[in-house]
Amino acid sequence: MSGFAAAQADGATRIAACLDDLIGAQPESVIRDGMAYATRGGKRLRGVLVLETAWLHGVAPERAVYAAAAIECLHAYSLVHDDLPAMDDDDLRRGQPTVHVKWDEASAILVGDALQTLAFEALSDPRMTDDPAVALALVRSLAQASGAAGMVLGQALDIAAETAAAPLSLDEITRLQAGKTGALIRWSAEAGALLARADPAPLRRYAEAIGLAFQIADDILDVTGDAEKAGKRLQKDAEAGKATFVSLLGLEAARARAAALVAEAEAALQPYGAEAETLCELARFVIARDT
Amino acid sequence: MSGFAAAQADGATRIAACLDDLIGAQPESVIRDGMAYATRGGKRLRGVLVLETAWLHGVAPERAVYAAAAIECLHAYSLVHDDLPAMDDDDLRRGQPTVHVKWDEASAILVGDALQTLAFEALSDPRMTDDPAVALALVRSLAQASGAAGMVLGQALDIAAETAAAPLSLDEITRLQAGKTGALIRWSAEAGALLARADPAPLRRYAEAIGLAFQIADDILDVTGDAEKAGKRLQKDAEAGKATFVSLLGLEAARARAAALVAEAEAALQPYGAEAETLCELARFVIARDT
Repeated sequence: MSGFAAAQADGATRIAACLDDLIGAQPESVIRDGMAYATRGGKRLRGVLVLETAWLHGVAPERAVYAAAAIECLHAYSLVHDDLPAMDDDDLRRGQPTVHVKWDEASAILVGDALQTLAFEALSDPRMTDDPAVALALVRSLAQASGAAGMVLGQALDIAAETAAAPLSLDEITRLQAGKTGALIRWSAEAGALLARADPAPLRRYAEAIGLAFQIADDILDVTGDAEKAGKRLQKDAEAGKATFVSLLGLEAARARAAALVAEAEAALQPYGAEAETLCELARFVIARDT
Repeated sequence: MSGFAAAQADGATRIAACLDDLIGAQPESVIRDGMAYATRGGKRLRGVLVLETAWLHGVAPERAVYAAAAIECLHAYSLVHDDLPAMDDDDLRRGQPTVHVKWDEASAILVGDALQTLAFEALSDPRMTDDPAVALALVRSLAQASGAAGMVLGQALDIAAETAAAPLSLDEITRLQAGKTGALIRWSAEAGALLARADPAPLRRYAEAIGLAFQIADDILDVTGDAEKAGKRLQKDAEAGKATFVSLLGLEAARARAAALVAEAEAALQPYGAEAETLCELARFVIARDT
């Protein structure tokens, strides 16, 4: 197993245990069941990024796992709401019925709401850090990354694009992606530095490159992927007539751009030397994955 | 103007200015417009509770207003989502079209999501306090009050009640209310003490009594109120055949119970002496209001 595959497997186990603990502490209800369901599985890319960048800065995974669980809750909430009939109207996620299909729309709205709340509860867990200033900085940066200036803005731009008179330009799609996918990936990469009170700037270039590469890879998968492997509906963008990196650049140029971004991400990690090898592998995985 | 009316007017002005500032700092988008729209107006009862309990503990309103704005964002998010077709399906709120009517469902889901995020951004604003431990305690208690163990749990119980085989008992409705309305009111009352690093316990009894009185008054208004004055649809519970404090206790006994709770709330404030007079008036307002 490569360094990244091992880190991903170990991280996924830690994150699942932490989520069990946090969700298990809520009173029994359909909401609690839905939260456990919606946070199960997935690649844990964001959570593993937190754990890896934390390790790079000497922060123990037993501490950092609360930040990793927080970003996975935030990501899961965005998927639950994004899958709703009024949004992307998806029935399948990670090969399973989406929350509003398994339960109902009202429960899915509330499950998403409660998962967002749980992200902030995880970041304020006293087991994450002894330094309240560190925890507060993570709360603040997560709020800024996920709200009306970050992820939610990206989602709104994405919805607006569906009814726009003309397809988006490359600049517009890049801005959309920077919010929708990029902001949480960047938070995840910077979290490790913030936990150690280190400067998060060196990881920012890495995060911005892999965030964009991730979205280009998603657009490529939407065209070339296997829906069964992906566990979700594909070819959605073409059906909706939406501009994507693939429709704008063409498949080959999109692949080349993604590869160039991965090289850029690896270059950004040079100051960290061999210790950053797992993060380099993670960058390569972002464009090599088939789900 | 009574002490409470003046405090409410002053608080509403401060809170509106703070919300303008926080929302105005987001990039221009339909989400930002919807957030401004959804947080306009209202009684600001929760925000004023924060400002009043802060004042009681010597915390300046210029500081406490960030916590007041946070709870108003949280409350507004819950209303925007609660009004959705899949939830209560309401077209009117504070006399205006609800967010999903004025825009669309997808925007309303995202506006609610972004308002919840903004609540945590407000609590992590460096202008609220110089002590990160204080801000973090407010983040943690708001997450616990509003998530799957608090407000969202109450909303889920409320939805489940609509399809339950038998109407809820008084105990069950009291538990539902403690989550749905009570948890945020309690947070608001305790916030002032937390901001001053004082013990919030003395305010808890006050908050629990007015929280329950508030919901009983809501049930009474739903039966006896004027929809035009209330700015929202009334008689919803009777139409839905839902058990309420009024259907279970009868109108007169419900009124008596609310009045007894207000007396209990006033008694809980005795240790604070004359300084708590405005909070006593607020308790009386909770059951005297006509909207």
